[in-house]
Amino acid sequence: MSRTAFFISDGTGITAETLGRSLLAQFESLEIRMVTKPYIDSTEKAQQLADVIQATAARDGETPIIIDTIVDQTIRGIISQAPGFKVDVFTTFLAPLEEELKVHSSYSVGRTHSIGQDDVYMHRIDSVHFALDNDDGARVSQYDTADVILVGVSRCGKTPTSLYLALQFGIRAANYPLTEDDLDEDGNLKMPRALAPHRHKLFGLTIDPRRLAAIRTERRPNSRYCSIDQCLQEVQQAEALYRRFHIPYIDTTRFSIEEISTRLIAETGLQRRFSPR
Amino acid sequence: MSRTAFFISDGTGITAETLGRSLLAQFESLEIRMVTKPYIDSTEKAQQLADVIQATAARDGETPIIIDTIVDQTIRGIISQAPGFKVDVFTTFLAPLEEELKVHSSYSVGRTHSIGQDDVYMHRIDSVHFALDNDDGARVSQYDTADVILVGVSRCGKTPTSLYLALQFGIRAANYPLTEDDLDEDGNLKMPRALAPHRHKLFGLTIDPRRLAAIRTERRPNSRYCSIDQCLQEVQQAEALYRRFHIPYIDTTRFSIEEISTRLIAETGLQRRFSPR
Repeated sequence: MSRTAFFISDGTGITAETLGRSLLAQFESLEIRMVTKPYIDSTEKAQQLADVIQATAARDGETPIIIDTIVDQTIRGIISQAPGFKVDVFTTFLAPLEEELKVHSSYSVGRTHSIGQDDVYMHRIDSVHFALDNDDGARVSQYDTADVILVGVSRCGKTPTSLYLALQFGIRAANYPLTEDDLDEDGNLKMPRALAPHRHKLFGLTIDPRRLAAIRTERRPNSRYCSIDQCLQEVQQAEALYRRFHIPYIDTTRFSIEEISTRLIAETGLQRRFSPR
Repeated sequence: MSRTAFFISDGTGITAETLGRSLLAQFESLEIRMVTKPYIDSTEKAQQLADVIQATAARDGETPIIIDTIVDQTIRGIISQAPGFKVDVFTTFLAPLEEELKVHSSYSVGRTHSIGQDDVYMHRIDSVHFALDNDDGARVSQYDTADVILVGVSRCGKTPTSLYLALQFGIRAANYPLTEDDLDEDGNLKMPRALAPHRHKLFGLTIDPRRLAAIRTERRPNSRYCSIDQCLQEVQQAEALYRRFHIPYIDTTRFSIEEISTRLIAETGLQRRFSPR
């Protein structure tokens, strides 16, 4: 017997889902099926969803959990008739906030994840294209206008991190792969020529060599590229470079893209250029 | 006189910030400075932050708003001594949830945005690289394994949307640009050969021609590419193609990447392959 949780919104559902997943992650022993229902913005859709919740309750034999950020009172009224344990985010917090702020809230739908200010939004899109254009050391001539340059060996997480930084924070993140081309005669990594003028912008990523080997095996099985010896050597060389040149770095092995990105911002003090309104 | 809101977490801060921005977006008439403080995971960091909040309160002459998802009671205790109007997300909702679920919550830090299951995470990274490899019609041979193929004219939002779908939902999204190469002798867009076998996977994006011209002007000013006539013609041809072949599509003009992506999922019924735990 398992329960179902519904994250319901008249907008994208991102707030309801983010909060809902956080709360339910605290009950790890339970198996809870999670369903996001965005754009419940008409009485028809609300009635349909109420029917679905009703049917789910009957099937599960357990009361569904309903976490919602619906603003419209009529729509909320319809949903509230369905059986469910309700976590009513806006009602719970908006009334006390109104009192504290001495202003009535506007009770308007989907404000956070809407497009917002045009120039800020353009900047976000621009950052995404910057990350793409400057992926994998492709166009080092643009490093002048980078906010940060991620360095690290192939498949340590540079590309997803640079894209996340662009999409979520409007940060212009280039990335540069450390390869054997940058080894000196002693077998040490030297500071790559393209990076030398931008040392203050560098941020290193490292990773456990075994995890790196596993990731590379998915991509190119049975190659030198994915062998544990090769991975070990590359990671050691990269970390030696970071230490020699005092490049700040983090180990991505147990971190999600969200964690790598937010830790990078926390450690560097980089300013976001975009935030969801 | 303006107020400051602090979004505080012992993890990434994503949940506190997402909820905080949503709540405060309902008070659009107020100017509220928003500050995210992630990784407040030691008593030292907590004490430092409490001092910052104290100083901010003095400077603003207004009580700061504090929205937090801190789990640790000691850390929370330190923060609570700073002056602030507290929106205490976990305490408010976890106790009633514990009662309903008849289980004690684990009160553990930063569960949601951590790395989670390895295979699911690999799938997410794989989707990001898929989106990159299949950007702008680069590698049509991989369309077999795409979950969705976004089509549209240059700069209508295909690339950021395909990356967002990959990063947030683990959806394998390719994208294909509609260009004059795909016009037939009558000046109509024909179904591009690479797309014909995958018609059921197509999803169209369209955009207001004036907005498109503005976006293209940022990129290549004073070109035919960014002229309003050119944009108007391309958009008309694209929309005609969508209608002729019954390709579902949405107008991205007033939508953020979050809205385009979540609407696409809602309309197509695409299954996510990744969710933050």
